[in-house]
Amino acid sequence: MEAKAGLAADLEGERAAALRRYREVRARTERLAEPLSPEDQAIQSMADVSPTKWHRAHTSWFFENFLLLPFAPQARPYDPAYLYLFNSYYEGAGARHPRPERGLLSRPGAADIASYRAHIDEAMTGLIGTCSAAIWREVAPLIELGLNHEEQHQELILMDIKHVLSMNPLQPAYAELPSPVARAVTPLEFVAFGAGLREIGYGGNAFAFDNEAPRHKAWLDAFRLGSRLTTCREYLSFIEDGGYRRPELWLSDGWATVQREGWDAPLYWRHEGGAWTIFTLGGTRALALDEPVCHVSFYEADAFARWSGKRLPSEAEWEVAAAETGVPAAGNLMDRGVFHPEPSAHNGGGLVQMIGDVWEWTGSPYTPYPGFRPLTGVIGEYNGKFMANQMVLRGGAAVTPPGHVRITYRNFFYPASRWAFAGIRLAEDE
Amino acid sequence: MEAKAGLAADLEGERAAALRRYREVRARTERLAEPLSPEDQAIQSMADVSPTKWHRAHTSWFFENFLLLPFAPQARPYDPAYLYLFNSYYEGAGARHPRPERGLLSRPGAADIASYRAHIDEAMTGLIGTCSAAIWREVAPLIELGLNHEEQHQELILMDIKHVLSMNPLQPAYAELPSPVARAVTPLEFVAFGAGLREIGYGGNAFAFDNEAPRHKAWLDAFRLGSRLTTCREYLSFIEDGGYRRPELWLSDGWATVQREGWDAPLYWRHEGGAWTIFTLGGTRALALDEPVCHVSFYEADAFARWSGKRLPSEAEWEVAAAETGVPAAGNLMDRGVFHPEPSAHNGGGLVQMIGDVWEWTGSPYTPYPGFRPLTGVIGEYNGKFMANQMVLRGGAAVTPPGHVRITYRNFFYPASRWAFAGIRLAEDE
Amino acid sequence: MEAKAGLAADLEGERAAALRRYREVRARTERLAEPLSPEDQAIQSMADVSPTKWHRAHTSWFFENFLLLPFAPQARPYDPAYLYLFNSYYEGAGARHPRPERGLLSRPGAADIASYRAHIDEAMTGLIGTCSAAIWREVAPLIELGLNHEEQHQELILMDIKHVLSMNPLQPAYAELPSPVARAVTPLEFVAFGAGLREIGYGGNAFAFDNEAPRHKAWLDAFRLGSRLTTCREYLSFIEDGGYRRPELWLSDGWATVQREGWDAPLYWRHEGGAWTIFTLGGTRALALDEPVCHVSFYEADAFARWSGKRLPSEAEWEVAAAETGVPAAGNLMDRGVFHPEPSAHNGGGLVQMIGDVWEWTGSPYTPYPGFRPLTGVIGEYNGKFMANQMVLRGGAAVTPPGHVRITYRNFFYPASRWAFAGIRLAEDE
Amino acid sequence: MEAKAGLAADLEGERAAALRRYREVRARTERLAEPLSPEDQAIQSMADVSPTKWHRAHTSWFFENFLLLPFAPQARPYDPAYLYLFNSYYEGAGARHPRPERGLLSRPGAADIASYRAHIDEAMTGLIGTCSAAIWREVAPLIELGLNHEEQHQELILMDIKHVLSMNPLQPAYAELPSPVARAVTPLEFVAFGAGLREIGYGGNAFAFDNEAPRHKAWLDAFRLGSRLTTCREYLSFIEDGGYRRPELWLSDGWATVQREGWDAPLYWRHEGGAWTIFTLGGTRALALDEPVCHVSFYEADAFARWSGKRLPSEAEWEVAAAETGVPAAGNLMDRGVFHPEPSAHNGGGLVQMIGDVWEWTGSPYTPYPGFRPLTGVIGEYNGKFMANQMVLRGGAAVTPPGHVRITYRNFFYPASRWAFAGIRLAEDE
Repeated sequence: MEAKAGLAADLEGERAAALRRYREVRARTERLAEPLSPEDQAIQSMADVSPTKWHRAHTSWFFENFLLLPFAPQARPYDPAYLYLFNSYYEGAGARHPRPERGLLSRPGAADIASYRAHIDEAMTGLIGTCSAAIWREVAPLIELGLNHEEQHQELILMDIKHVLSMNPLQPAYAELPSPVARAVTPLEFVAFGAGLREIGYGGNAFAFDNEAPRHKAWLDAFRLGSRLTTCREYLSFIEDGGYRRPELWLSDGWATVQREGWDAPLYWRHEGGAWTIFTLGGTRALALDEPVCHVSFYEADAFARWSGKRLPSEAEWEVAAAETGVPAAGNLMDRGVFHPEPSAHNGGGLVQMIGDVWEWTGSPYTPYPGFRPLTGVIGEYNGKFMANQMVLRGGAAVTPPGHVRITYRNFFYPASRWAFAGIRLAEDE
Repeated sequence: MEAKAGLAADLEGERAAALRRYREVRARTERLAEPLSPEDQAIQSMADVSPTKWHRAHTSWFFENFLLLPFAPQARPYDPAYLYLFNSYYEGAGARHPRPERGLLSRPGAADIASYRAHIDEAMTGLIGTCSAAIWREVAPLIELGLNHEEQHQELILMDIKHVLSMNPLQPAYAELPSPVARAVTPLEFVAFGAGLREIGYGGNAFAFDNEAPRHKAWLDAFRLGSRLTTCREYLSFIEDGGYRRPELWLSDGWATVQREGWDAPLYWRHEGGAWTIFTLGGTRALALDEPVCHVSFYEADAFARWSGKRLPSEAEWEVAAAETGVPAAGNLMDRGVFHPEPSAHNGGGLVQMIGDVWEWTGSPYTPYPGFRPLTGVIGEYNGKFMANQMVLRGGAAVTPPGHVRITYRNFFYPASRWAFAGIRLAEDE
Repeated sequence: MEAKAGLAADLEGERAAALRRYREVRARTERLAEPLSPEDQAIQSMADVSPTKWHRAHTSWFFENFLLLPFAPQARPYDPAYLYLFNSYYEGAGARHPRPERGLLSRPGAADIASYRAHIDEAMTGLIGTCSAAIWREVAPLIELGLNHEEQHQELILMDIKHVLSMNPLQPAYAELPSPVARAVTPLEFVAFGAGLREIGYGGNAFAFDNEAPRHKAWLDAFRLGSRLTTCREYLSFIEDGGYRRPELWLSDGWATVQREGWDAPLYWRHEGGAWTIFTLGGTRALALDEPVCHVSFYEADAFARWSGKRLPSEAEWEVAAAETGVPAAGNLMDRGVFHPEPSAHNGGGLVQMIGDVWEWTGSPYTPYPGFRPLTGVIGEYNGKFMANQMVLRGGAAVTPPGHVRITYRNFFYPASRWAFAGIRLAEDE
Repeated sequence: MEAKAGLAADLEGERAAALRRYREVRARTERLAEPLSPEDQAIQSMADVSPTKWHRAHTSWFFENFLLLPFAPQARPYDPAYLYLFNSYYEGAGARHPRPERGLLSRPGAADIASYRAHIDEAMTGLIGTCSAAIWREVAPLIELGLNHEEQHQELILMDIKHVLSMNPLQPAYAELPSPVARAVTPLEFVAFGAGLREIGYGGNAFAFDNEAPRHKAWLDAFRLGSRLTTCREYLSFIEDGGYRRPELWLSDGWATVQREGWDAPLYWRHEGGAWTIFTLGGTRALALDEPVCHVSFYEADAFARWSGKRLPSEAEWEVAAAETGVPAAGNLMDRGVFHPEPSAHNGGGLVQMIGDVWEWTGSPYTPYPGFRPLTGVIGEYNGKFMANQMVLRGGAAVTPPGHVRITYRNFFYPASRWAFAGIRLAEDE
């Protein structure tokens, strides 16, 4: 009897904790949308970008489609059209509105989406609070997945709206941001790690994405990892040394991209009247040279590394270095409200800026780990089907929600993408 | 003295009339935007379409740029950025925001545009009321041009929002519209006109666009003009006879367009579950067979005419027929609030539906009349530079403001365009 | 009996004359191909261009498809695949090899095409010599059409190979050509023509294309026509005056083309080391300033005319001027072997260079004449279906076969086309 | 004295051997071109494909540019234009003719290229025979690289001409090929390999490409490798099971490619009148079900593996399996003259078809091995700059020259490429 009561109490505690976390995550999404007008939330500035209101709706669709409709008794679609409009890419969940046409939808409007979210929240509160213990065992991990999914879209909301606003000649700010920290960084050092057979990947019991598993062995030769991120000052030297005009520094596909796109600096940099400016979520301001360079593609990161006589780290090197030096899962993340990378603090010979500030391009293509198994069912489309043509990034950025990123976390983008908050950490062979 | 007083009184009368008309036209634009949310007003569904709020701003820019800044003492730009954002295509008025990117601007928002319009209206009221008599002689014709320009954009607002809403899988209505009139049309007849040397073009003293002048001679062989517009029933026979699959019925460029675009019916027609539906500004409903066919391209109009054993009229034939039969400048125009063509009334052997319902494709390329002179200055870009690759349409549509269209009025679109309210009237040689 | 014998003799004479002409035309095609290697004859440098061997085959297909297979007893396809490969655009003659893929065919080779031509010639000789009198009446006009068709392709062979060779960095010559004539042209004068009701179009009994008929009335206001063609010197002044950088000189579609294509001079002009060179069928040489400008688009011709304070003539004006001044159908045509326009001779107040040198852009869109009827059957696709989006050119060029062009002859190209030998004659209102 | 004489004798022997090999390789290229007409050799059917004569010239340019001009006294460019025309992608070797325009060059013709080759061969014979011992040490490895380079282009000549001929509706054969072997394959088995730390990569002293080095450690989990290649029969089951219509089987980029390209079978397969045919270098014939499937993309290989419940091997697994089972460097290669993969012989429980028949897609992206160093100088562009967005293939094909491929050899193509002779070998976790 007592054991049973204890189990029941545990379950109640779990439900209460889940509900608390559900509310926190969902409320953060709405806070991020608050500074934005209905029009701001409706625009799609390129195919990669989704309108803010679409993110708000799609994250709700995730709960409706994967939790409420399968598990909540008497659940009915809030609006059958929403199942079509707000499915992102799940082929198994039926037809979808074409991604490049997300910006053609003036309706449902921002207010309609707020109602949709309220409806889902109410239904989810019911499901969490009242489902049977058996159902709870099934839905609990899916709820956790849905919340991690929504955290990813919180970062996307900021990435995407930055691109939307940048296309406006008025260069409007998303919000008033704190003044940039003025801090001179210390010289770049390289931290050494020995050769050996290591293990990488997630092997614990808490939440992690399927693509982080299984934990597996990997042989690493000795290497050295840059103590801090590459700064705008260092990147500017590359530009001034003709970096964007010297094909020998580039991968072939990268050079073709530079030519085709006319790149001559990172995204959001502008050279006007003899000075460099940068567009941030706080508007346009002078380039701060000690800040980490941000919004570069893999091609640019790779060319910069070659110009530096270095290379990018592999994802295994990055993870092993983080693990061995005990990097904490904290840094300049979304909760700081800075929404932009900051100059590194003095590092004292160790690694700094591993978590937060900018995602760090690695030299590793995004492929399945040995023994990788996607989740079963439609939800299995979450990660696995994207394992081609993309590169892994590690460490999180100033727009990543706190608690979301881990040292085993694998982010991924196409090598020509620049709208993510992505930067550079150098490595070299021992 | 008396004459002078009389002249002054005339001038005051002119000013008062101009102000009345100015207020009417400007208020109608705002009424058209009223049913639309801020998001509705921000979307651009293809490069040809402009957002509603852009139309509202651009028509105000026209008055600011061509009237207030040159003629109003102490006028200053309302916002220098607006001069860039809301210039449409006037190369002589400086750089412009690229047309296909009008839908990327979440700001200025719909409310900002309302303020801009109010500011311009106040300043224009001042200019109209207080400028010197000498200035009045200069600005009066420009104001009239600006109002006719705004009337054109009123039609564009309806054309464009129809396209925007049609791209939404929800198929939302612009407004609740009156139920379609159910009326069986009478058989098509052909009205004969003799050969002879005629005159066409505008030769009067009231307002007309530069492209309607000069009035000039043209020889016409004898011809016969269809008594009414082609109906959906007639066009459906063409479809059912394989019209969209028979290359021999099409101009070469038209056939290439059919193949490339996959056309098999007019824009906004849909064949679902064995029945044809049509999207209108009132939403989706069943196709009404006696209504005039609408939203066809020149290529489709031309192919339908060939299939019918007829041809399209030339613009000279259309105008001569209208003039000789005394067609009044009235019909199913915007003020009727129907926003869709209606079945023709009994015609009694004459021409009906010449004005209103749908613009009628002619077989005449849009070229300058002999002796054509564009307006002087930047405003000369209004019409002349578009005189290539487009075809003339005549007669106005159910979305054309009343009083705007004349029998000498020359509208023009590219032969593949379908989003205008354009239909078909047949002709044949005598 | 005598009359019958006379008729029979006439018929024999007709057949003999037709055969003579057939042999002459066919032999000229082969002479044009002679300087070209098999590889030269196989290349397609853009979708508009066809390989030389394709022209040689297609003109033979025309006789096989429209003459031999329908009219020659026991005729069998030379190779069924050829009916597919060498049909150009006749939808009614079945499926075709896609136009942009004509350059992907290494086989049949140039030698195979020579055999095909020999086979067709033998069969045609048989048909001409031995068919019944009744069949002769049917085939005679089709043979004449086939020969005129082949003459058009003779011009295309030169136009197309010029483009092919120009794409080669080696800039090889098609043939050794005579040195350019050095002759200073006299100042441009304008010849006046009065207003009146005129007739244009072909009304005779000899061969003419369907698009030249019917002869019909047209009212012309008084106008004046340039005495000679625009020279390279005159066009260079336009360039040096910023012609390609001033949007106010251009039609809107023309300006967009200039921007998109990066045009800054006529096709085949190159500015290198401070001097202008020009690529001709004889190779690259210095620009000769007194020669007529050639290889300009309609947009450039129109912009040059606007810059000159003049305009382009209408096709009716051109034809009336040619008719009234008794322009002979002679000039710098293909038989001169110059293959490039030459400086005008002294004109003595009249019109020179009307026939030959370069095709002259008119301001007239290519539309059907009033009462136009295409030929019946598949052959009716010859001209009519192209009557949209193109502009009329008049007068023939230095690559037009002698005897081919007439003052009623209507050539046509899209307004952005530059690979035809097309130039400019100015006009103005009286 | 004796040692010196011995060294000199060694050197002479080396030179003689090098010359023999040089002549063999160069002669094989010309033999491959022999069945082709000048036109066959000039065509470029897509941007990836180069004309045969271009391959013949480019491989000569390689010797001229990297051997003769730097090392042969008094060497002068054979034709300065050739240095531009026949540079492939070496940015460090100056400007190049654009790759997609290689098919626009009718000149130099096939005969000109033969002269160029003869000239280069004579000069190379001189260099090999007469250069100083010191120069010999420098040039010997470059000559070996040039010959391996030419061997790669020999395979490309066959791959490319197959594509060129396939675009011709006549479906001409490259040559008369031996009748396909009719042999029923035995069931697929899987051969097991244990987990452990292994070494892969080239570590010997003979020739190998820079991308095969350095030899390095890699941890492998236990795995099993398919005993033979996937057959057409097996692949057909995938097709018939809806493989090309089921998105859950595909990587996201692969599915998008299937949709965009309309793929429903491997390249060169055609379903006509109820039966499958296949285009080979010997022409079109019935699909032979026991032959290995060929001309599939990585996406198709990956989707087939997923449908089979298996996966593709990694390149390390492939190499380790080949090494541990002592796979000989022999098989159905170019010298067999079959130019098409053949049904596997009975395998008796081991691995067959590892070398030859078809290149085998691996699941490994083409990235640098740890410690990879490109060759120094311009020649360093040979491999390294392509290490992004491509996948590794192993084992050689029926069009690979004998002696060219090794078990450490890394071939690479983009995941959507299908014109290489590429097929499938399955693997699975132990």
